[in-house]
Amino acid sequence: MEKKALLYEGKAKKIYTTDVENIVWVSYKDSATAFNGEKKAEITGKGELNNEITSLLFQKLTDAGVKNHFIEKLSATEQLVKKVDIIPIEVVIRNSVAGSLSKRLGMDEGTELEKAIVEFYYKDDTLGDPLVTEDHIRVLKLATLEELQTLRTLGLCINNVLKEHFAQCNVRLVDFKVEFGKTSDGEIILADEISPDTCRLWDAETNQKLDKDVFRRDLGNVTDGYNEILKRLGGLSCTK
Amino acid sequence: MEKKALLYEGKAKKIYTTDVENIVWVSYKDSATAFNGEKKAEITGKGELNNEITSLLFQKLTDAGVKNHFIEKLSATEQLVKKVDIIPIEVVIRNSVAGSLSKRLGMDEGTELEKAIVEFYYKDDTLGDPLVTEDHIRVLKLATLEELQTLRTLGLCINNVLKEHFAQCNVRLVDFKVEFGKTSDGEIILADEISPDTCRLWDAETNQKLDKDVFRRDLGNVTDGYNEILKRLGGLSCTK
Ligand SMILES: Nc1ncnc2c1ncn2[C@@H]1O[C@H](COP(=O)(O)OP(=O)(O)O)[C@@H](O)[C@H]1O
Ligand SMILES: Nc1ncnc2c1ncn2[C@@H]1O[C@H](COP(=O)(O)OP(=O)(O)O)[C@@H](O)[C@H]1O
Ligand SMILES: [Mg+2]
Ligand SMILES: [Mg+2]
Repeated sequence: MEKKALLYEGKAKKIYTTDVENIVWVSYKDSATAFNGEKKAEITGKGELNNEITSLLFQKLTDAGVKNHFIEKLSATEQLVKKVDIIPIEVVIRNSVAGSLSKRLGMDEGTELEKAIVEFYYKDDTLGDPLVTEDHIRVLKLATLEELQTLRTLGLCINNVLKEHFAQCNVRLVDFKVEFGKTSDGEIILADEISPDTCRLWDAETNQKLDKDVFRRDLGNVTDGYNEILKRLGGLSCTK
Repeated sequence: MEKKALLYEGKAKKIYTTDVENIVWVSYKDSATAFNGEKKAEITGKGELNNEITSLLFQKLTDAGVKNHFIEKLSATEQLVKKVDIIPIEVVIRNSVAGSLSKRLGMDEGTELEKAIVEFYYKDDTLGDPLVTEDHIRVLKLATLEELQTLRTLGLCINNVLKEHFAQCNVRLVDFKVEFGKTSDGEIILADEISPDTCRLWDAETNQKLDKDVFRRDLGNVTDGYNEILKRLGGLSCTK
């Protein structure tokens, strides 16, 4: 496979075309951003860690029968994935209250939810990725009601797999964000990444944060937590 | 009927008990607030106008078969209503894009929606009345899914009546907020008020704002618009 033109550079990854039409080359960056780009930093080793962790988790999901874009890990910071048309909806699944949900509903961080909840956010940096309802999604024509139902079901299914998997690694999956896309034949599959950048992961015993909140809230060394997650997931390489 | 103890003083109205258990006495105030109480003013005549307009609109809704709390107008600023347990959900119905929806979705104010949309906000001043999804409402136990369906259906039904009625008065009903409550026998009925404080009302030809946005955005004399609405609704008394 050959890496060709840069297709898109995002906040955390670069996407390149390849010599195969439906396959793109993803390169994970060391950039960290938060609060809609207001807070920024370069964190050496983060790209490598997220590439490795995402590869492990997507492989796990493949094994569990969840269709996704992952093809193979190419190098420390690179992977090959199926090209999709990303649906501009961030699907957030929450097992416990944290972050914006805690602020929105006035509930304490860490409160366990009886049943996982699903939220949709409109993936649009200029609008600050606002929470949207099914009615809003209909107005914006981002997805049909049937597609939304698929996103919700897939999100909860992914949650079941990951929650259990993390629990076995002594990690509490508080919440996470996923993105889906349509393949050239119209199928909706899981895409993007699943990493400590996109999940809240707490130590199951101490509730110590092992995710991007360490960066957002200046709680210490960011890659320490990411390395710990990789180690617990049985990852082979570490940056330190 | 006798007015008894002050039960609750809100931003726009005072609620008193009466000598009848299931009936409360509402007194409309001249206070205006916006942006979650950040902007405040006393506007002479507003209480009278909102009392009169709400009375006319609730009577109209009663005639159309929409069950509501309105019993009778008592004086310029007072009315009698059935006492309910307010469901702390603000139900917003929108026919066109305006205000927070315009900001949230990045759509121009005034864009007509193909179909009316319904939004739910958690009525909680300390949280700033946040937008909530059905999942959030379930977590907060504000209403059951079945009750939410009732709120949505009633909201759209009220919209059909009011939109048509305002259109006949040459007024464009852009959006509005309603509150519902449960009577002592558990029935969900329309409560609170429907006035230029709680609706966006634009002149059908010029799109001139005749509602609280005149106050929020400092667009001129607030009661001029409210008086114009009352006049067009065929109201008998005006404050000027
Ligand atoms: N399989 C895929 N095909 C095409 N685009 C993808 C795929 N997976 C992820 N993307 C997109 O790649 C972009 C780069 O990722 P990222 O750096 O996280 O960007 P952003 O800052 O927009 O979130 C994102 O817009 C993401 O939606
Ligand atoms: N029929 C009713 N029975 C009991 N309470 C009511 C009824 N109708 C409205 N209310 C409540 O009366 C309170 C006073 O109104 P308002 O001044 O608008 O208060 P707020 O500032 O809380 O919106 C509100 O909490 C409203 O929900
Ligand atoms: Mg991203
Ligand atoms: Mg009110």
